[in-house]
Amino acid sequence: MCKYSFYNDYSEGAHPNIIHALINSNLIQEVGYGDDSFSLRAKDKISNLCGPNSDIYFVSGGTQANLICLASMLKPFESVIAAESGHITTHEAGAIESTGHKINTISIKDGKLKPNLIDSILKIHEDNHMVKPKVIFISNSTEVGTIYSKKELTLLSKFCKENDLYLYLDGARLASAITAEGNDLSILDITNLTDMFYIGGTKNGALLGEAIVINNSILKKDFKRLIKQRGGLLAKGRLMGIQFDELFSDNIYFELGKHANSMANKLTRGIKKLGFTFLTESNTNQIFPIFSNELIGKLNKLYGFYIWLVVNPENSAIRLVTSWATKEEFVNEFLLDLKALSK
Amino acid sequence: MCKYSFYNDYSEGAHPNIIHALINSNLIQEVGYGDDSFSLRAKDKISNLCGPNSDIYFVSGGTQANLICLASMLKPFESVIAAESGHITTHEAGAIESTGHKINTISIKDGKLKPNLIDSILKIHEDNHMVKPKVIFISNSTEVGTIYSKKELTLLSKFCKENDLYLYLDGARLASAITAEGNDLSILDITNLTDMFYIGGTKNGALLGEAIVINNSILKKDFKRLIKQRGGLLAKGRLMGIQFDELFSDNIYFELGKHANSMANKLTRGIKKLGFTFLTESNTNQIFPIFSNELIGKLNKLYGFYIWLVVNPENSAIRLVTSWATKEEFVNEFLLDLKALSK
Amino acid sequence: MCKYSFYNDYSEGAHPNIIHALINSNLIQEVGYGDDSFSLRAKDKISNLCGPNSDIYFVSGGTQANLICLASMLKPFESVIAAESGHITTHEAGAIESTGHKINTISIKDGKLKPNLIDSILKIHEDNHMVKPKVIFISNSTEVGTIYSKKELTLLSKFCKENDLYLYLDGARLASAITAEGNDLSILDITNLTDMFYIGGTKNGALLGEAIVINNSILKKDFKRLIKQRGGLLAKGRLMGIQFDELFSDNIYFELGKHANSMANKLTRGIKKLGFTFLTESNTNQIFPIFSNELIGKLNKLYGFYIWLVVNPENSAIRLVTSWATKEEFVNEFLLDLKALSK
Amino acid sequence: MCKYSFYNDYSEGAHPNIIHALINSNLIQEVGYGDDSFSLRAKDKISNLCGPNSDIYFVSGGTQANLICLASMLKPFESVIAAESGHITTHEAGAIESTGHKINTISIKDGKLKPNLIDSILKIHEDNHMVKPKVIFISNSTEVGTIYSKKELTLLSKFCKENDLYLYLDGARLASAITAEGNDLSILDITNLTDMFYIGGTKNGALLGEAIVINNSILKKDFKRLIKQRGGLLAKGRLMGIQFDELFSDNIYFELGKHANSMANKLTRGIKKLGFTFLTESNTNQIFPIFSNELIGKLNKLYGFYIWLVVNPENSAIRLVTSWATKEEFVNEFLLDLKALSK
Repeated sequence: MCKYSFYNDYSEGAHPNIIHALINSNLIQEVGYGDDSFSLRAKDKISNLCGPNSDIYFVSGGTQANLICLASMLKPFESVIAAESGHITTHEAGAIESTGHKINTISIKDGKLKPNLIDSILKIHEDNHMVKPKVIFISNSTEVGTIYSKKELTLLSKFCKENDLYLYLDGARLASAITAEGNDLSILDITNLTDMFYIGGTKNGALLGEAIVINNSILKKDFKRLIKQRGGLLAKGRLMGIQFDELFSDNIYFELGKHANSMANKLTRGIKKLGFTFLTESNTNQIFPIFSNELIGKLNKLYGFYIWLVVNPENSAIRLVTSWATKEEFVNEFLLDLKALSK
Repeated sequence: MCKYSFYNDYSEGAHPNIIHALINSNLIQEVGYGDDSFSLRAKDKISNLCGPNSDIYFVSGGTQANLICLASMLKPFESVIAAESGHITTHEAGAIESTGHKINTISIKDGKLKPNLIDSILKIHEDNHMVKPKVIFISNSTEVGTIYSKKELTLLSKFCKENDLYLYLDGARLASAITAEGNDLSILDITNLTDMFYIGGTKNGALLGEAIVINNSILKKDFKRLIKQRGGLLAKGRLMGIQFDELFSDNIYFELGKHANSMANKLTRGIKKLGFTFLTESNTNQIFPIFSNELIGKLNKLYGFYIWLVVNPENSAIRLVTSWATKEEFVNEFLLDLKALSK
Repeated sequence: MCKYSFYNDYSEGAHPNIIHALINSNLIQEVGYGDDSFSLRAKDKISNLCGPNSDIYFVSGGTQANLICLASMLKPFESVIAAESGHITTHEAGAIESTGHKINTISIKDGKLKPNLIDSILKIHEDNHMVKPKVIFISNSTEVGTIYSKKELTLLSKFCKENDLYLYLDGARLASAITAEGNDLSILDITNLTDMFYIGGTKNGALLGEAIVINNSILKKDFKRLIKQRGGLLAKGRLMGIQFDELFSDNIYFELGKHANSMANKLTRGIKKLGFTFLTESNTNQIFPIFSNELIGKLNKLYGFYIWLVVNPENSAIRLVTSWATKEEFVNEFLLDLKALSK
Repeated sequence: MCKYSFYNDYSEGAHPNIIHALINSNLIQEVGYGDDSFSLRAKDKISNLCGPNSDIYFVSGGTQANLICLASMLKPFESVIAAESGHITTHEAGAIESTGHKINTISIKDGKLKPNLIDSILKIHEDNHMVKPKVIFISNSTEVGTIYSKKELTLLSKFCKENDLYLYLDGARLASAITAEGNDLSILDITNLTDMFYIGGTKNGALLGEAIVINNSILKKDFKRLIKQRGGLLAKGRLMGIQFDELFSDNIYFELGKHANSMANKLTRGIKKLGFTFLTESNTNQIFPIFSNELIGKLNKLYGFYIWLVVNPENSAIRLVTSWATKEEFVNEFLLDLKALSK
């Protein structure tokens, strides 16, 4: 039994406001499948951030959002381009392939796709014996904690338009990305620059739930049937509505992201002070310090975390994840223990 | 705005015990994806009913349970046999076909499959230019409110074994079926007689969630990967665990089913007393009275319900659904209003 | 060992002209995958019939043509409407479902879809919990030997356009349909009235091969990748080109259809003369006379054919199929034997 | 217009014996779908090489064989491990992914999988959030002209059995592999060491056709339905039977492979003599000499071939393919032209 878990950002339940809203709304009768008043109100609030031209749907998790959205954008022979570190590439048990589509992968250290990398994939897929890349899959923040700048996303978006590609953004950790030090992207920017994206709830204070935002009008038609078909339409859609209604009240969604980041930043500063380096530059809620395997073994008896990557025979990068619920006292304690153990 | 909704059994939130458990557990750190202590405890409680040899998994909804389970049992060319009234046949937006499999349908008024009906489908699929039926899909209670007797399920199970077929039971409304007047099936019986089934939570007091029970050991291997692949594995699996832990404490799961049935029975008795007939014989929480279209129009201004079937140009069957949360006062009021309107 | 087989129209090899062309072209080097000079020439000849605006591709068989074409027209949640007698419905081992799509079936004795029948299917699929019908699948001639008139096809086409549906025609036996007594449809008409169709070669004198004709420009893009993906692109595409080049030289394609029909018509006249009735009205190369089971048993010792349908406990319909290769002497002999046996 | 094409091994028609057999058999009536007497005889001849315990089926091409076979071996969440150079990886337009399955790729210069490479893939897929590798896909000869030795295949087979994996061999160019200098594998060895493989016809003298051989009895059941479902079952199955009957008469299959190899070997010796190097060591009918881009430009005006790989800014590897039909005079001429152009 460890002192504290930095395994991930879904170790606790939900933000207290959500719990209260569940209590207060519990016995109100509502229609099912997402047409309830809570969902409508939550969509209104998200529309305030995205603008009025996007369609919004709620589904229960990130893999479900990804497989529903990507399959909706692809003809049978079309493929998705993603980073090798992309969540869909190896951590979704073949969910995208299960819908019939290949993922063309790009190996890139910071987990961020760039036009020239995508272009090199396009160039080797011109022959009609090959799949045709059609969707660019990116994550923000990425799976290695980095974020896209407004300039980078604008260039990607432009490249996609010029090459008849769709741009899709996995926002499982969008709250952390958007509130990170150095970020200059807003939800409105992302709406304008992508064809579809999702705003993650599960990893930012909800019990479950992601809000899919469809910006390209070609992709809007009959989307609900697709959600139903893939098993993503909850009978009690109110559960989604209530949660997103709360998250987008009083700026809470962003406050939670900011808290997670500040806890991670504190860890980063403390770890750097002790002389350690990191696998990637991250201002978001996932950080990847490199420790000796011996030190990792000792730390792991006290704290929960994943060993992310073998850097060399003696050293590995671990992943520390903070969340809306991370308590500062355990951040402090981790740093003290690290200092003690690494002497 | 109507007085009360009899649209379905998922108009309200969750049983209060579930809400309390969510509050109490909220800030406890737990591991993700269904390995949390609540899920383990909930599985133990379900195992007490099913026996120790079944594997148990939680997913978020019925369509998801059906598509994951059926796809897990089928080779590419194999099909499912279901009643035309079966939920998978028309109400899941092609979820089963989306996994690559045909549904062979049987038209049968009471919604219940029988060996001779299945046999006639098998007989016309012996040619290898056709799909090969492999899974028998049944619902209990059925989509028209009827239930299987122990004898009926035993005969079906025997027929399936003799014909190298799997038997799968959709238990979205299992609580209502098992607590219905005249029922002689237990969860243990169903475990012994089927290869796989699910115990519905969404329609019996949970916010969401169905418990898949795998009885045939051939079908158990790597099942979690399949759930993950289809987007059915919640990061905060605790949400499932907490709910089923509560539902299977103090007999609550069955008490809720019993309440729903008693409300429906009261409606049935009252409606019959007024001289009306029904589409099917139902002791469960869905009933299908036949009214004149004129009467339906008037009732529909006061109460929410679906018009189920056009019986003849003047009359239709409507569907009234009660739930764990249905208040007796509204049942009484409905009967009074019906009496007044039908004079 | 029977005297002669009326099982089907693919019991023999290929028309002699095809065999000669294979010999003559055998050692010429050609590029692969359908870009050879024979394929280009064959497409030119077909374009002379269809007009210049259609794209043409060759694939090896009817099931392959159907699954490639239908999957190319559908989004994941969209379905196909077909007659219950439609080849895709039961005789293709779930090929369409295997691409992820449901078939909504219509039971109709003459095997021909009509706007009102389709409309009734559309009406019960308006809810977004259901698949959305998108393609109308028809066969000409149908699987029960009937054909569409120009008026009927025009009405269907108009209905499809008005309802945002695609119209697809399976022309496995198009040669027989178009040369049948009473037909008033041309290949050009079919091109103008459908979004996609195929011209059958296998059942009209080729060793194998069907020519897919795409008329709707929305559906043309990247079609070859889809053929490749489904395993339908032959390395030696020349084999297709050579055959269709021959079939569409000197009116042979239509001559072969005409011969098959005239042999079937002769059978029909002879059988009617002996007082027998038929399951359907057919002027094409498939006929369905109704005989007593006893007579069928005797006939079956002399001639090969399928027993198609049990009409009543004493009588069944059999299917007799003629082809481009059917010899008149065996038609005469069949009628003589029938006369003798039915006395 | 070039002098001669070394593009591939399917530039010509069929071996003359096949053409003769098509002529001689043309008007014999046969049953359809592979139950004809020619197919039965061809299967008998192949059984003489494989032993009596394997099931044999014919399909029309390699992509079709691969997608049917691999899909038959996999549960929804299972994947295939293949070399990056493997035909299924990039040259089949996503055919395998289209059946719902991921390909895990291994980058390896000689195109040959080894147990340790596979093991490293298995090690990173133990988590149930990932696909589960189940089939090892190899080609013999490989896509870069190399072949497996008996020892190598035995080690692979042993590794697969120990790790509960299926071993599948793509034999598109099996004739060339088995008759290559240095080969010590027989068709019987391959039968004993793999679960399934196919014997390529298209690239060794047939008009089209591959013979699938199923060795593992678990995988045999209902295989024909799978072929039908994927559009791979030819109505005139006789076309397959006739061809394989001829290819496996009088040792022709192996003679054709031997001829192709001897033409390639002659090219290799001549090219080496002129001082050029090769991308891979190949004794089979595909060779990959490295030339300067300037020389390639000149050669390409005289001969057809693919530019395979950019080796460095000045030099590239080209692919020269010989076949059963390659004429020695053009091999000689190529070498003379190369000598003249490279001075």
